[in-house]
Amino acid sequence: MATPVKTMKAIRWYPPSFDIRVEDIPVPQIQDGDDAIVKVTVRSDLHVYRGHAGVEKIHTSGHEFIGEVVELGSNYGVHSQGRPELYATLKVGDKVVSPFTVNCGECNVCRLGYTCRCPFGALFGSPALEGGQAQYVRIPKAGGTLFNLSDSKSWSSALSDEAKTKALAGIADSSLLMLADILPTGVFAALQAMNHPKILPALSGRPWPASFFPGDASVTMLPEDRVLTFAIIGLGPVGLCACVSLLDMLSAQPLPFQIVAIDPVESRREKALAVYSKIDEAGKGSGKFVAESIDNAKKTVQDWTGGVGCTAVLEIVGNPSAISLAYDLVRPFGAIISVGVHGEPQMPFTGRQLYNKNVSFDFGRCPARAMFPMAFDLLVKRQDVFGGVGGPDCLVDQIVGPNEAPEIYAALTNRR
Amino acid sequence: MATPVKTMKAIRWYPPSFDIRVEDIPVPQIQDGDDAIVKVTVRSDLHVYRGHAGVEKIHTSGHEFIGEVVELGSNYGVHSQGRPELYATLKVGDKVVSPFTVNCGECNVCRLGYTCRCPFGALFGSPALEGGQAQYVRIPKAGGTLFNLSDSKSWSSALSDEAKTKALAGIADSSLLMLADILPTGVFAALQAMNHPKILPALSGRPWPASFFPGDASVTMLPEDRVLTFAIIGLGPVGLCACVSLLDMLSAQPLPFQIVAIDPVESRREKALAVYSKIDEAGKGSGKFVAESIDNAKKTVQDWTGGVGCTAVLEIVGNPSAISLAYDLVRPFGAIISVGVHGEPQMPFTGRQLYNKNVSFDFGRCPARAMFPMAFDLLVKRQDVFGGVGGPDCLVDQIVGPNEAPEIYAALTNRR
Repeated sequence: MATPVKTMKAIRWYPPSFDIRVEDIPVPQIQDGDDAIVKVTVRSDLHVYRGHAGVEKIHTSGHEFIGEVVELGSNYGVHSQGRPELYATLKVGDKVVSPFTVNCGECNVCRLGYTCRCPFGALFGSPALEGGQAQYVRIPKAGGTLFNLSDSKSWSSALSDEAKTKALAGIADSSLLMLADILPTGVFAALQAMNHPKILPALSGRPWPASFFPGDASVTMLPEDRVLTFAIIGLGPVGLCACVSLLDMLSAQPLPFQIVAIDPVESRREKALAVYSKIDEAGKGSGKFVAESIDNAKKTVQDWTGGVGCTAVLEIVGNPSAISLAYDLVRPFGAIISVGVHGEPQMPFTGRQLYNKNVSFDFGRCPARAMFPMAFDLLVKRQDVFGGVGGPDCLVDQIVGPNEAPEIYAALTNRR
Repeated sequence: MATPVKTMKAIRWYPPSFDIRVEDIPVPQIQDGDDAIVKVTVRSDLHVYRGHAGVEKIHTSGHEFIGEVVELGSNYGVHSQGRPELYATLKVGDKVVSPFTVNCGECNVCRLGYTCRCPFGALFGSPALEGGQAQYVRIPKAGGTLFNLSDSKSWSSALSDEAKTKALAGIADSSLLMLADILPTGVFAALQAMNHPKILPALSGRPWPASFFPGDASVTMLPEDRVLTFAIIGLGPVGLCACVSLLDMLSAQPLPFQIVAIDPVESRREKALAVYSKIDEAGKGSGKFVAESIDNAKKTVQDWTGGVGCTAVLEIVGNPSAISLAYDLVRPFGAIISVGVHGEPQMPFTGRQLYNKNVSFDFGRCPARAMFPMAFDLLVKRQDVFGGVGGPDCLVDQIVGPNEAPEIYAALTNRR
């Protein structure tokens, strides 16, 4: 077993906001038999830099990280069979990636796949749990939480074990880091849109409720009824991942589609267009993709759909104006998929507005641990898009050493 | 062709509220080639008696009715092939039931099955369209709107034509009247719950997202994870129809379930229990069904689920306290199906509440015309529950002649 050092560098968040300090603090210790200690090798985080109302506790930031297991609690080993597989198989030296929240993997919520709402859930880099912007991080319930990148057998996906191992070797750590949050969250948004019952009539060619009920398929749908129209609101890293994921899902089916990717910031729209241009022709499916400002996007959806609206809208911002825009853009009987992290403002809708448009909503946090196989497969399949650091179409801009953190944080914040 | 009388009795609604008068008004005439005039034989309605803010126009009430076609516009007959079938086949003398809104049957919205949001949509018995509380009613876009009860070939369902005709003969008009609104709306609520992606992990035994994605079924779900827990809020006629429909759908699958039907009014809870008791043992499925007041229901869901909450909640009231109760009762990653007619109050949720519970919502009006085959099949299959007038478990209490209307309306309102 590796011997941890006694102190380490950590990026500490001080209330109320905009105060980030690099400090020497004690290396975390095993507190529970289910814990693991991970030496962090790649990390990122900006979420709480600006401060959240009511957060008073000094803590280490960082909710996305990759690292190497250096110590395991007493509950690991072959005697832990019957529990999540990682309790039996995880070893010191394994390379791991962690989703941004803890999950036990063995409660009702986790078994259903809703891992981000596990009762043991805590967000790394929050007052509840020290984060990964440090040399070491303690992982509670590590056998349920971590993905073991060193053992492709332990995480299932549509790829063969051989394909997984080979693929993994070709993926930069900066890309793998996307597995912690932004890539599964983008996939989660796209998946919820593509599997929503309100999209099923167009996908199946059988009208509601014949798409579920075998007795009535007397209506003949026209090709134009089956054109799928999507808006993606917010082109930060998660929004770009949602673009790639949605395009990938659409390329697997024959129907025409049209996607408008929306952001007020021109450089982000350019990034979305660059991502789209990097996707090979077969991967683009039979549709069109534009990136537009809010006002232009409203006009585009109006023109595309004759004023009817989008089949589904992906809302990846998390504020009242973004969710209001989603409502304006969605068609009657359309679906709004919101993965944006919303705050305290009340929902800006009356009951009558929602009734009158027959709107469906899916809100909330991505169950990143459960989404890992889908996200990993997409990462492998679309290395042409996700790969590389520093180009105009790169999703992860920079890898930052801990000592540079305060300057980088300030620069990123000023840039916006 | 029958010769319409020159004037007729009609139940007229006067603003602002609680003013219903029986008057003699002109019989409606064909105004458009797509119109039909229907002689009304059975009717009901109470919705707008109390008045809606802003409704100033005197109009004939009634959004639910059955009748006989007495006159057809110029667009009916064999030359209308290629349009919805009823334009070619509807005949004077046919017995028809109308959904509570008009729909053309030949636009993109109708072809998708979202008939209640047709751009030609208008609610019978509203300022936009004279209702069925009269001796005659004009049906715009009748070839898209009506169901022809005299021609079982013209409306598909899982039943054979012979079975449909035979079944129809055994169903009282007071039961058929439920097809106009309350029965399809109840079925719509249950259908949306049972086909929601958030219920799929329990139904399929494959966790999210493996329920969609073939690559990951490594998690073994336990029997307890697959118990379906439902709450039905509001036990008026639509709520009772939702109970029957949900029980019917659950009886077709092997999983255990638990349903709490909720209403503050004891007589309504008793009606729900009476409905349940009338369902034969095979039809009850492998679950339990209780009817409770709000406080008791919260405790029951707490006990049943160890505090986790309901898989899905059906909200059939349409006010802020009902939708708040739905939020309180639903589990993280649960679905709230709201078919209640909501008004102007803002949604009583912050964005953070919705994010933090990963809630899904389906809001809005039932596409009654599209739901007709499912609703009719349920009506036939569950005649033991729906049949009969006047018993404690009867959903339609009384058939009212037009001259009795003011007294009955006043009595019904006072009773609540």
